[in-house]
Amino acid sequence: MTDAPMPALLAAATRQQGTQLPVWFMRQAGRSLPEYRELRVGTRMLDACADPGMIHEITMQPVRRHKVDAAIFFSDIVLPLKAIGVDLDIVAGTGPVIAHPVRTRADLDQLVPLEPGHVGFVTQAIRSIVDELGQTPLIGFAGAPFTLASYLVEGGPSKDHALTKSMMAGDPELWDQLCRRLAQISGAFLRVQIDAGARAVQLFDSWAGALAERDYRERVLPHSTSVFESLGAAVPTIHFGVGTAELLGAMAEAGSDVVGVDWRTPLDLASARIGADKAVQGNLDPALLLAPWEVLAERVRDVIRAGAQAPGHIFNLGHGVPPSTDPDVLTRIVELIHTEGPGLRAAADC
Amino acid sequence: MTDAPMPALLAAATRQQGTQLPVWFMRQAGRSLPEYRELRVGTRMLDACADPGMIHEITMQPVRRHKVDAAIFFSDIVLPLKAIGVDLDIVAGTGPVIAHPVRTRADLDQLVPLEPGHVGFVTQAIRSIVDELGQTPLIGFAGAPFTLASYLVEGGPSKDHALTKSMMAGDPELWDQLCRRLAQISGAFLRVQIDAGARAVQLFDSWAGALAERDYRERVLPHSTSVFESLGAAVPTIHFGVGTAELLGAMAEAGSDVVGVDWRTPLDLASARIGADKAVQGNLDPALLLAPWEVLAERVRDVIRAGAQAPGHIFNLGHGVPPSTDPDVLTRIVELIHTEGPGLRAAADC
Repeated sequence: MTDAPMPALLAAATRQQGTQLPVWFMRQAGRSLPEYRELRVGTRMLDACADPGMIHEITMQPVRRHKVDAAIFFSDIVLPLKAIGVDLDIVAGTGPVIAHPVRTRADLDQLVPLEPGHVGFVTQAIRSIVDELGQTPLIGFAGAPFTLASYLVEGGPSKDHALTKSMMAGDPELWDQLCRRLAQISGAFLRVQIDAGARAVQLFDSWAGALAERDYRERVLPHSTSVFESLGAAVPTIHFGVGTAELLGAMAEAGSDVVGVDWRTPLDLASARIGADKAVQGNLDPALLLAPWEVLAERVRDVIRAGAQAPGHIFNLGHGVPPSTDPDVLTRIVELIHTEGPGLRAAADC
Repeated sequence: MTDAPMPALLAAATRQQGTQLPVWFMRQAGRSLPEYRELRVGTRMLDACADPGMIHEITMQPVRRHKVDAAIFFSDIVLPLKAIGVDLDIVAGTGPVIAHPVRTRADLDQLVPLEPGHVGFVTQAIRSIVDELGQTPLIGFAGAPFTLASYLVEGGPSKDHALTKSMMAGDPELWDQLCRRLAQISGAFLRVQIDAGARAVQLFDSWAGALAERDYRERVLPHSTSVFESLGAAVPTIHFGVGTAELLGAMAEAGSDVVGVDWRTPLDLASARIGADKAVQGNLDPALLLAPWEVLAERVRDVIRAGAQAPGHIFNLGHGVPPSTDPDVLTRIVELIHTEGPGLRAAADC
C-alpha cells in the first residue's frame, strides 16, 4: 500500500473534503469526443461494451483529455441484462429494445442471477483501466431496479412509463418480484466492478423522477436500498436520478454516501433536503455548455458556491454531456474548477 | 342574462366552490377518441385547427361523451404563430417544425403582432361552440412565451432546450425582445377567445419545468405575467406546466387564479407552495389510466382528498390524456367524481 493522499473524489464523497473540489462529467466517456466517435465506427454499442480493449480506451479518453478527477466505467445501463441472456439490442436513435418485454410471472424467467462469469470482460477491462489510472479513481456504475424494470416492462424507452406504473399499481407482487431480481443484478454488477478495482460506484435511477414520492417510497426505494445494502461499506456510493426535486429526501434514504442532483434544484437547497450526513454531486445545467464562456463560467462559480454549503461536493453536470458539446469547453471547466474552486469554496464557507 | 348558478369550474377557479368538484382532462379533445381519429382522417393538424366546423366538432366530442364540466378549445400551441405567417408545419411523429428558427434580431421580423383578423376562424368556431355548450363553460388556451420561444429557437421540439437556454443566458436582450412579442401574441390570442365566448383560459407553459427557478424568475416569469396582466379580470385564468415542482411558487406569482400541478407534487403540498389565494388544478398521473379500475379509482379519491385542502380544486390529470387511453375509463372517472366527489370533499374538510 502506498501512502498517497486520498483522491479528491473519495474525500468529497466521504465528507473529508476541505477546499478541494473534484470534478467529472456524466457521459464524459462517449459521444462528445471525436476520438470516441472515430473508435466506434463500425462497432455496435453492445459490442463496444463487451470488448475489454474498447472499454479501456473509451473510459480513459476523457481522463487524458480533460484531466477530470475520476474515470467513469464505459458501459450501458442494459449491459448486465444482455450479459445474463436477455434478448435485447440497442437501436441507434431509439435506445434499448427488448425482444420479450416482462408482463407476466413467466417473463421473469429471463432474469437469472448475475454471476461474475457473465461479465468476465468487465473484470478484465477494469483491471487494465485502474492500472493506467494510477491514483485517479474509477467510478463503477449500474442502473437502478426501477429504471431497468421500466425498459423491461415497456420493451424500450418510454415517455410516460405507463405500463410500468400500471404494473406497479395493479400487480405490486409481480412488480416486487421483478425488482428483487433486478436489485440482485445491479448489486452483483457493481460488486464485480468493485472487486476489479472501481473505487466508487454510481447507481443511476435515470427515470425515477417520473414517479410521485409515494410510489417511489412504496415500490422503488426498498429495492434501491437493497442494492446499496448488498455493497456494504466497500466503496463510497453515489445515487442519481433526473427530475427528482420531490424525491431527494427519499432517494437519500436508500443509503448512498452521495446524492446526485439535477440542475433544477440549487445544491444548498438540495443538501438541506438530502441531509447533513451526505455529500452532493452536480449540478450545472448541461444546456448551458452552449452559452458564451463568461456566462458559463459564472454559472460554474455559482454551482461551486452553492455546493460549498453541503457537507461534501463533487462537481458534475445535472445530467449527461450532450452529444453536441464542444469538448474544449469541458476541459476549460475542469481548469476553472481546479484553479478557482478551492478559493471559492473557502470564501463561501466563511 | 339568465340567473343560472355559476358553473362548478368557474366557482372552483374563483374560490367559491363548496363541495362541488368540476373535472375536465387536458387533451380530452383529441387522439384518445375514435370519433376524433375518424374525423381527422385525411386532414392535417393545422388544417383541422383552422376549420371552424372541425374545431367545433372536436371540441364538443369529449363533452358529449364524458359529461365533463368544461370544454377545452381544440387548437395547437403553434397555431397563432402559423396564423401570423410564421412558416411552420406539424409533422406527425415529430411535432412542430419551424422553417426559419429564431436565432438573431432579424429573425424576429417574422413575429408581427397578432390581430383578431388573423384568427377569424377561431372567433367563428368559438361562437358556435358556446351556443351548443349552453351552461358548460369553454376554456380557451394559448402557449406561454417560454414554450413558444423554445419551439421558435430550437426549430422544433427539443429534449434539452439547449439553444433556448443558451440565448436566454448569452443574449438576454434578444431573448426578452422575442418573449415580449410572444407575450403579445399569447395575450391577444386568448383575448380573441374570451371575446368570442370562452369563460376561462389556460396558459400552457409546457416546458417551463426544464428551467431552474432562478432562470424562470429572471427571464420567463415577467413575460408570463404580462400575458395575464393583458387579460385583466376578464375571466378566471389557469397557469400550467409539467415538472414544475421547484417552480410552483414562482408560477403562482404570474397572476393566474388557478395553478395546474403535475402528478409529482400532491395537491395539498402544492397548494401550500402556491398560496391560499389560488385554486389548484390536477393531478392524477395519466399513466395510471392503464391501471386496474379499483386501483385507479382509489387514486382518484386520493387526489380529491388532497385537493380538498386547497382553496379551490378543479380535477384534472397531471398532464395530457395519453393517446392509448380507453375513453370509457375517462367517462367512469367523471362519474366517480360527480357521485363521490362532494362527499369526499366534505369529509376531507372536517
